[in-house]
Amino acid sequence: MHFTIHHTDGHARTGELHTPHGVIRTPAFMPVGTAGTVKAMLPESVAATGADVLLGNTYHLMLRPGAERVARLGGLHKFMHWDKPILTDSGGFQVMSLAQLRKISEEGVTFQSHIDGAKYTLTPERSIEIQHLLGADITMIFDECTPFPATHEQAEDSMRLSLRWAERSKKAFERLYHPSSIIHHLLFGIVQGGIYRDLREESARELCATGFDGMAIGGLAVGEGQAAMFEVLDYTVPYLPKDKPRYLMGVGKPADIVGAVLRGVDMFDCVIPTRSGRNGQAFTWDGTVNIRNARHADDPAPLDARCACPACTHYSRAYLHHLVKSGEILGSMLMTWHNLQHYQDVMAGIRAAIEEGRLKEFAADVA
Amino acid sequence: MHFTIHHTDGHARTGELHTPHGVIRTPAFMPVGTAGTVKAMLPESVAATGADVLLGNTYHLMLRPGAERVARLGGLHKFMHWDKPILTDSGGFQVMSLAQLRKISEEGVTFQSHIDGAKYTLTPERSIEIQHLLGADITMIFDECTPFPATHEQAEDSMRLSLRWAERSKKAFERLYHPSSIIHHLLFGIVQGGIYRDLREESARELCATGFDGMAIGGLAVGEGQAAMFEVLDYTVPYLPKDKPRYLMGVGKPADIVGAVLRGVDMFDCVIPTRSGRNGQAFTWDGTVNIRNARHADDPAPLDARCACPACTHYSRAYLHHLVKSGEILGSMLMTWHNLQHYQDVMAGIRAAIEEGRLKEFAADVA
Repeated sequence: MHFTIHHTDGHARTGELHTPHGVIRTPAFMPVGTAGTVKAMLPESVAATGADVLLGNTYHLMLRPGAERVARLGGLHKFMHWDKPILTDSGGFQVMSLAQLRKISEEGVTFQSHIDGAKYTLTPERSIEIQHLLGADITMIFDECTPFPATHEQAEDSMRLSLRWAERSKKAFERLYHPSSIIHHLLFGIVQGGIYRDLREESARELCATGFDGMAIGGLAVGEGQAAMFEVLDYTVPYLPKDKPRYLMGVGKPADIVGAVLRGVDMFDCVIPTRSGRNGQAFTWDGTVNIRNARHADDPAPLDARCACPACTHYSRAYLHHLVKSGEILGSMLMTWHNLQHYQDVMAGIRAAIEEGRLKEFAADVA
Repeated sequence: MHFTIHHTDGHARTGELHTPHGVIRTPAFMPVGTAGTVKAMLPESVAATGADVLLGNTYHLMLRPGAERVARLGGLHKFMHWDKPILTDSGGFQVMSLAQLRKISEEGVTFQSHIDGAKYTLTPERSIEIQHLLGADITMIFDECTPFPATHEQAEDSMRLSLRWAERSKKAFERLYHPSSIIHHLLFGIVQGGIYRDLREESARELCATGFDGMAIGGLAVGEGQAAMFEVLDYTVPYLPKDKPRYLMGVGKPADIVGAVLRGVDMFDCVIPTRSGRNGQAFTWDGTVNIRNARHADDPAPLDARCACPACTHYSRAYLHHLVKSGEILGSMLMTWHNLQHYQDVMAGIRAAIEEGRLKEFAADVA
């Protein structure tokens, strides 16, 4: 099996997910390498924080530089100099949030690029092909991310369309990979259904029947709030196979992550640590810090005395404040590095706490 | 003596300049750390390119974060995590090029900050005090950078004002440093006089009489062109003491630098490698490369096969093209790193060529 569970603590578990480019320790946080780069970071630095896997965005990469081009240049790993696992999303979420003049049909989605207005079509078959061209270790099915809020009827229609696209995604995947390599390349399904328990149950049941290597939970962290999200997790996770990895897409802040791990989730991705870093917000063991705040201008203390990242080891809050206020690139670099280090430290702390059966106590410490 | 000459080749020489934070191998190129950061670079990375010394800008640092604040935080070396030598300029050049509502008098310059319009006064005494607060290893006298073009009379008046300010700068310097440390901290004079030989001679003669630890040549690379600049160097360098370092301020492209070394110059600083890098222009052994050009979009070759920097070792031109076109911070990081590496490789090549008596042949290879 590609997924091995080592320890459990309540619903939480530690494990290892095996991919063509190596092992992912779970629970895992995947930094987002949107357009072939984790913004403001060298890939060696991302690896140094302890990240085992990156997320690559099908939507961004298909528009620029183009999936066929990346394939000609040897694939995304070589292109961006990252030889550990890469999970690619299917493009569905960004098409909904970024693209212009979207038209959804049974076949797929046509849209215009937010960069230059060029027309594109994304179908389950094309999404899987793009992810294959990029060289994904973990491929996501193409689905429609159900908007929030949505009525039960809207969420039901959307979820059933996603189920039909999931079937087509799996068939496309099986056509593209040789049987001898398909056992290493993983395809994840995505449970939809909004905040409706019956729809989540139907979605999970049907996806389990089709069969995937892992199960994602989509359509959350779109405005429903942490309490509603945890409630959906509380009833959805039990519908998912115990022996397969569970991935909560697009989540979140450290407290969201540890709360989801307590509910049985194994994998996460989010732009919050990178985007917040560029905006001057740091996540620390004592909560968030807005480094732009004037009270840091003369502070010789590090951002987080418990963090071993370069930003915290070599620089004062006063210096980081100066860099961010001055719009210096090094400010984005150091703040991003710190946040990614903090996220990986939180994940390492979560894994250690699960092994020692004290995740609830650990969770109380995560600000 | 703080400056030792090891080899000569025509007018060119190699040497070592000793400062409180270590030795500078000359001829030397100093990357510019404008606002307490070499833009888009970690200081460790700057050091890894082979840079022995950085330049810090008095004007930028006095406005933000403020010289007294940097001093309270332990000085510029500690603030920006750079423990090698720092040369600070006097602020005179940036006041002329960036500040608003300048008023020059015998006393000094009053101006408004280009950042927030706040009023400041910069005098020789205040400039030296700021450089002392920053913790400069090499301090520059406060002068007026003569505009180009300037009539003989304008250039003469400006040069003589700068001579009077040089005297005041030296007195201020001697008041600030304890006699036991002043032998390590260096103060450089700046020869002015525009493109007028008699004025350059007078300026150099008077500064030599006052006595400085090194001599800079100011007021060049301001629009006069390479031929006129070399002509000024041809007649100015012989007026300078042989046993002291010579620093051509604000220069330049690799061919400008090697041409100036052939004429006897030992030190350089310039924003070209960093600024050009952020704009997508690379300096290579085969000339300049505009990585934004569409012909690089599919090119798997490195930027410069003869360069060992991370940008050239791990990435294709196609990837760099993609990053720069997409406005990704990593594009600025890698292009800057390459340019700084190339500049230091050029300087190392210059030093080796001087040692082996083949600088003219080497110079012909510098694009």
